[in-house]
Amino acid sequence: MKYVYMFSEGNSSMKELLGGKGANLAEMTVLGLPVPEGFTVTTEACLRYYEDNKEIAPAIKYEVRDYIKKLEEVTGKKLGDKTNPLLISVRSGARASMPGMMDTILNLGMNDEVVEGLESLTNNRRFAYDSYRRFIQMYSDVVMELPKAEFEAMIEEIKENRGITEDNDLTADDMVDMANKFKSFYKEQVGKDFPQDPFVQLFASIEAVFRSWNNPRALYYRRMNEIPNNWGTAVNIQRMVFGNMGENCATGVCFTRNPATGDKHIFGEFLFNAQGEDVVAGIRTPYNIDELKPVMPEAYQEFEEICHRLEQHYKDMQDVEFTIENGKLYMLQTRSGKRTSSASLKIAVDLVNEGLIDKKQALMQIDARILDSMLHPQFSEETLKDAKEIGQGLAASPGAAGGQAVFTADEAVRYHEQGKKVILVRLETSPEDIEGMHIAQGILTARGGMTSHAAVVARGMGTCCVAGCSEVVFLDETSFRLGGKVYHEGDEISLDGSTGKIYDGLIPTVPAQISGDFETIMKWADEYRTLSIRTNADSPADTRQAIEFGAEGIGLIRTEHMFFEADRIKAMREMILSDTVEERKLALDKLLPMQRGDFEAIFETLEGRPSTVRYLDPPLHEFLPTKDKDIIALAEEMNVTETTLRERITSLHEFNPMMGHRGCRLDVTYPEIAVMQTKAIIEAAINVNKKQSDYTVKVEIMIPLVGELEELKFVKRYVVETADRIIKENNTHLDYIVGTMIELPRACVTADHLASEAEFFSFGTNDLTQMVFGFSRDDASKFLPAYYDNKIFEQDPFVRFDQTGVGPLVKMAIDKAKSVKPNMKLGVCGEHGGDPSSIEFFHKAGLSYVSCSPYRVPIARLSAAQAAIKFG
Amino acid sequence: MKYVYMFSEGNSSMKELLGGKGANLAEMTVLGLPVPEGFTVTTEACLRYYEDNKEIAPAIKYEVRDYIKKLEEVTGKKLGDKTNPLLISVRSGARASMPGMMDTILNLGMNDEVVEGLESLTNNRRFAYDSYRRFIQMYSDVVMELPKAEFEAMIEEIKENRGITEDNDLTADDMVDMANKFKSFYKEQVGKDFPQDPFVQLFASIEAVFRSWNNPRALYYRRMNEIPNNWGTAVNIQRMVFGNMGENCATGVCFTRNPATGDKHIFGEFLFNAQGEDVVAGIRTPYNIDELKPVMPEAYQEFEEICHRLEQHYKDMQDVEFTIENGKLYMLQTRSGKRTSSASLKIAVDLVNEGLIDKKQALMQIDARILDSMLHPQFSEETLKDAKEIGQGLAASPGAAGGQAVFTADEAVRYHEQGKKVILVRLETSPEDIEGMHIAQGILTARGGMTSHAAVVARGMGTCCVAGCSEVVFLDETSFRLGGKVYHEGDEISLDGSTGKIYDGLIPTVPAQISGDFETIMKWADEYRTLSIRTNADSPADTRQAIEFGAEGIGLIRTEHMFFEADRIKAMREMILSDTVEERKLALDKLLPMQRGDFEAIFETLEGRPSTVRYLDPPLHEFLPTKDKDIIALAEEMNVTETTLRERITSLHEFNPMMGHRGCRLDVTYPEIAVMQTKAIIEAAINVNKKQSDYTVKVEIMIPLVGELEELKFVKRYVVETADRIIKENNTHLDYIVGTMIELPRACVTADHLASEAEFFSFGTNDLTQMVFGFSRDDASKFLPAYYDNKIFEQDPFVRFDQTGVGPLVKMAIDKAKSVKPNMKLGVCGEHGGDPSSIEFFHKAGLSYVSCSPYRVPIARLSAAQAAIKFG
Repeated sequence: MKYVYMFSEGNSSMKELLGGKGANLAEMTVLGLPVPEGFTVTTEACLRYYEDNKEIAPAIKYEVRDYIKKLEEVTGKKLGDKTNPLLISVRSGARASMPGMMDTILNLGMNDEVVEGLESLTNNRRFAYDSYRRFIQMYSDVVMELPKAEFEAMIEEIKENRGITEDNDLTADDMVDMANKFKSFYKEQVGKDFPQDPFVQLFASIEAVFRSWNNPRALYYRRMNEIPNNWGTAVNIQRMVFGNMGENCATGVCFTRNPATGDKHIFGEFLFNAQGEDVVAGIRTPYNIDELKPVMPEAYQEFEEICHRLEQHYKDMQDVEFTIENGKLYMLQTRSGKRTSSASLKIAVDLVNEGLIDKKQALMQIDARILDSMLHPQFSEETLKDAKEIGQGLAASPGAAGGQAVFTADEAVRYHEQGKKVILVRLETSPEDIEGMHIAQGILTARGGMTSHAAVVARGMGTCCVAGCSEVVFLDETSFRLGGKVYHEGDEISLDGSTGKIYDGLIPTVPAQISGDFETIMKWADEYRTLSIRTNADSPADTRQAIEFGAEGIGLIRTEHMFFEADRIKAMREMILSDTVEERKLALDKLLPMQRGDFEAIFETLEGRPSTVRYLDPPLHEFLPTKDKDIIALAEEMNVTETTLRERITSLHEFNPMMGHRGCRLDVTYPEIAVMQTKAIIEAAINVNKKQSDYTVKVEIMIPLVGELEELKFVKRYVVETADRIIKENNTHLDYIVGTMIELPRACVTADHLASEAEFFSFGTNDLTQMVFGFSRDDASKFLPAYYDNKIFEQDPFVRFDQTGVGPLVKMAIDKAKSVKPNMKLGVCGEHGGDPSSIEFFHKAGLSYVSCSPYRVPIARLSAAQAAIKFG
Repeated sequence: MKYVYMFSEGNSSMKELLGGKGANLAEMTVLGLPVPEGFTVTTEACLRYYEDNKEIAPAIKYEVRDYIKKLEEVTGKKLGDKTNPLLISVRSGARASMPGMMDTILNLGMNDEVVEGLESLTNNRRFAYDSYRRFIQMYSDVVMELPKAEFEAMIEEIKENRGITEDNDLTADDMVDMANKFKSFYKEQVGKDFPQDPFVQLFASIEAVFRSWNNPRALYYRRMNEIPNNWGTAVNIQRMVFGNMGENCATGVCFTRNPATGDKHIFGEFLFNAQGEDVVAGIRTPYNIDELKPVMPEAYQEFEEICHRLEQHYKDMQDVEFTIENGKLYMLQTRSGKRTSSASLKIAVDLVNEGLIDKKQALMQIDARILDSMLHPQFSEETLKDAKEIGQGLAASPGAAGGQAVFTADEAVRYHEQGKKVILVRLETSPEDIEGMHIAQGILTARGGMTSHAAVVARGMGTCCVAGCSEVVFLDETSFRLGGKVYHEGDEISLDGSTGKIYDGLIPTVPAQISGDFETIMKWADEYRTLSIRTNADSPADTRQAIEFGAEGIGLIRTEHMFFEADRIKAMREMILSDTVEERKLALDKLLPMQRGDFEAIFETLEGRPSTVRYLDPPLHEFLPTKDKDIIALAEEMNVTETTLRERITSLHEFNPMMGHRGCRLDVTYPEIAVMQTKAIIEAAINVNKKQSDYTVKVEIMIPLVGELEELKFVKRYVVETADRIIKENNTHLDYIVGTMIELPRACVTADHLASEAEFFSFGTNDLTQMVFGFSRDDASKFLPAYYDNKIFEQDPFVRFDQTGVGPLVKMAIDKAKSVKPNMKLGVCGEHGGDPSSIEFFHKAGLSYVSCSPYRVPIARLSAAQAAIKFG
């Protein structure tokens, strides 16, 4: 097993083994660019380190020593040699870029002797001791985990004593003083002298980099960026070049194009007489890269040429690091540059226009998730400068908004009627809050995860939402504490649903910038994708929005969402509280025209695009009031005693509503509900067809929560009898199909049975995930943090489809369905329908379409194209 | 397709096609016994009838007409022929016996002409018109569904007018009068004359029998007896013989042995001058069969010989029907006779001793489910005679008991301390009620199904329980209405947990009779079974009981059950309400000695038999108080404010506790719980081992609710570290293994991963069934009745393992586990572990053992033997 590679032995295709940084250093070396010599300890060595209970195996140590010898040969320098010392940097480098998440040690090889040697060699005492003190400082921090602040304090003290403020004004003696102070502090803290043996320094540093793979911020970053925990990091060991040897030295960080706008112009910053971390740390204000040209024209020209060459070679915008040592340029890093969403689109389109890449490559280059941020209003960086952040929750639904805090849906409505903008602040939301949520500029909840009710509904509406902010402490029904301040009803707060941050007061937002590149990319995506993209929408407004974003139909109309509005909930409650079938039918008769009207409006908006209507799904008690005053009012309205009403409400209580009397179980117990809904749909379709002749309404009726063929048969019989009767009575023709949601494990296992009756399947991966994992979205927030902290889960399975545990059941269902009906229409209408990696799975699994909330339609279009390009 | 078979064409192996009755009539015919000629319309014809939208296909009608011709040929009589009429019976006959559930029509072929012909032919006017009026009566009832009571009223009226009370005192004229009155009534109700065409009568009757397959009582019977709905019924058409032609006629029903005791002696009843239904209907008091001998010695002797021959032939006790027409014996039915549990065992053992069958056949002959009733006290038939039945619930846990009604666990304890016997009456029970449940003689709940908390716990304890009796209406906290009467605290009621019946007042019970045959059968079962039988037990008492019943170890110790007792719940609550790890550890330290003591007692009882200990499983809020006064008291005890306590309780609330923070999720968030439980187990095992040298404690540690390998790894690490440390500290050796419950669909799908870490699997089929179906046991009772009524479900999947939907996942898990560890120990510890048909599945699927509640251990032993015999 080979654990170490010289840069000259590698290339950019070896990222898995060498990490991104290592592979690119190797690639640049092979291209003949001026890269300081070095080698890479592989990611496999890191994994081995963890396997060996956090010890570096002797074989690896031996190999590293061997490569140090090789490095000494090619550089002509020697580690720890006073007369000709080799100084090296030790840097992390994972397969995917994790900027700043892991550790780096510079100037390794310094000790009390070498520093003297370096002084006489460079004739630069200040430089030598600056390098030494930097090394002690970094080693103490990164390897020994001594408190960083103490070192900063010592520097400040020296500067104070000397009456200066800038690092550059520190003298050589100051640096010597500093190095000594650092060493004393080290000894005091560690109980041993600062290590003088370069190999002791080296292995401790390598180990520190390995360790840093699992530091908390790295873990968090990986979770946020969906990077697996089992990749490990490589370690890059490289000859030091010095940007801090004097005024003909410099160091900088650049992008080959503007990462904010995408403009084709080198963009970056540098410092004279400094080491790389000074630029990043922001202690000194760096210069714009353009200012390098007049001072060091030759170095700048070479740098410009290299930038161009790297772009041509990598066919993408690059993020590079360089150092100029005594006028000579060295490249220290190149990688694909991070960029804003709009820059990402512009660069992709430009690169195609420049002939560097083709459309497929352009599509593959864009991270689909970034499109999200382009569709919602945002706080600009300007406006955020003076904002007071008061809390942090989950970034549940993107966009930014400010308004007056209100605590109930009713208040939201009252404020709205007065023309005021509100942020709805709730412990958690429930379907009863739907009207208030619709009206609110933003939603903040103290409980619930990324797929809580608030989060799901907000994303569906495109309303910004920060969910599960446990810092919000409700003091009573009209106030809460957050960030040390008490907020009452009417106080102003602002939310950023893209970052999860909460701010004091009202922060203005800027509208989303959708440039022409966005349209271009979407057009290209549509050329390649094979999956259809539909949307989950319950209203004409949502539908219109989704169609604008490119939806080809509706994959999920949740009919119950229509019943929470004030004028409808009464009839709904009458229906629920009916004692007899007759009473229930009377109440349903009142609901019928409302529901029919809703469908007509949606069908008209769709203009002939297909729509899948899911029948009533939630447990009935969700529609009933819970507060005393509401119950009393309802009892009066319904003309029953409060006791009777309470008894009825109690009798509807469920221990586990998620696993209760809902979905098609409602239709089995009350078939008249299915009959009413069928009437509403079919009559609406016929009415819309009669009104115009430009298109024909396409209806797909979906029975939810089916787990057994006989269930589906039973409900379908009512649906078909009702539909056919109405069609016949109207003396017309209407194509409609009846299918089912696959959202129970038993539906997957018996999918072949179900396929014999269902004309289509739509996977409800939210509920399916819940049942397969055996935990509910609403309750999981109590223990999921511990699961992430302990690396038991890497991802929220409600956000990213679980291919390991849920995937095989979906695959089983697809195979069984196709064994019965080879061309069956199969789709997904869970939240996963808008998640790129999940869409990739659905593409591979052979589905016909995915359906997602309107604001995720563009993401789905691009992700589907990427999946098609990747897997054909 | 052949839809009709003459009796002479069939045999007893054709039950699927001909039904039980038809197949046995054919068998007797072939054996040469005196069976009136006839034919059978197959069960396939019945299924075809339903497929054809409840119409008898012309082809079938044609075939029936053809067979009527054949019947006319062999009998020499003719349907509808006045001079020589063929009269026939039309009887149902399903594959499995469903006595009295479906319909029968006798004397078909009668009409106004035939009755006259029959009169002159038999010279018996009374007989002729008796037969006619019977036919009109039955046809009106069964085929036309006219009200039965009206006919009874007409008969009563005639008897009253005539001043007589016995049917036998009715004269020929009375019969004519009756026939005419019936015909008039028929015409009045139906609007048409009583049909005179025998073929119209015949096809209407066949259709009525087909229809009766789906009448409500047949549906209910099938559900209770686990008979599939898709079997259908055959129809047997047979020449009538008449037991009502005069005093040298008789009809009777007999068992070849005593069905109550198993004694080898013909046992039965008969009537002179009567038709078969008179015996069954109980209108006249029949004679003991022994009294037939002196009156008709020849017929009796022939009958006795036939009984013997049938037993020898069928190798089982038979239930036969016969008719003697003018001194000549006819056999009308034979079938395996229903018998009491004890008779069942005695007969099986006797048949082996008589050399008729071998041990395997004996074991296969016994319905394992009947053993249940042999282990609990019961109401005798005597004592029930005068009992007033006041309600009916689910027969949730067998046995019978009476006592004073109490409404809370606390009251139960108070009554118990005064030496009183109580029945605990609750809306539903919760883990808090455990002490009261333990003390109660019986438990009655208004809500919940066969696997509700009350039912499961009661079965585990062997306490009788009637669950989900929705007729119980709570008026307030100390009274309820049932059967029209209001019961207050202290009022006496009695329950029969084997029938689900509730009685007013105190009914004495008789202890269970366990005869030596029971022991014999169990011994034989143990010889053949390959599955081990364990028990689910949480206390030494349960454990002892289970071992007496033959359990070979414990398959499930639910550690949480130990924490509901008064002195422990406090420490448990302290643990739950801890704010820091340190506080939690302090509280756990208090629980440690209690739990260790529990384990020591159980291990000592087990005397070296293995036991599987499941770690804390339920959501924590189950342990917290819900009532105001309890909360206030607890706050005081814990020295926190009521507000703080309420906040903590609220924060523990879950929307779907079944899918919440429970099982191993508790250990992931609070590993110190797993550490404490490990300490308790390992220390207990070491202590018990030190005390004696006769046996060594065998411990299996089971992590519940695992869905992901990393979860198991995480918790197992704490377990192993703790266990190994304690073993080392004690300088001893202890074998323990760590495994997991498979109770989530994701655990099945990833069973190969889990098997790499787990040393055994135990399938928790209760939770698995819930997750696969997506409904909770507690909530399903709201809609399951509609599922049974509409034939969507045939069985409660929590009682009988669902082989269609859950089975493939269990099989998948077993296959995946064995692919990693071919000899892995695999068991079941769900409620299904005590259900015969489920045990058959588990045997076939390749499990090592099943574990069930103590009172089901004998059933499991026998079922396992039957599965082994059936499938090898």
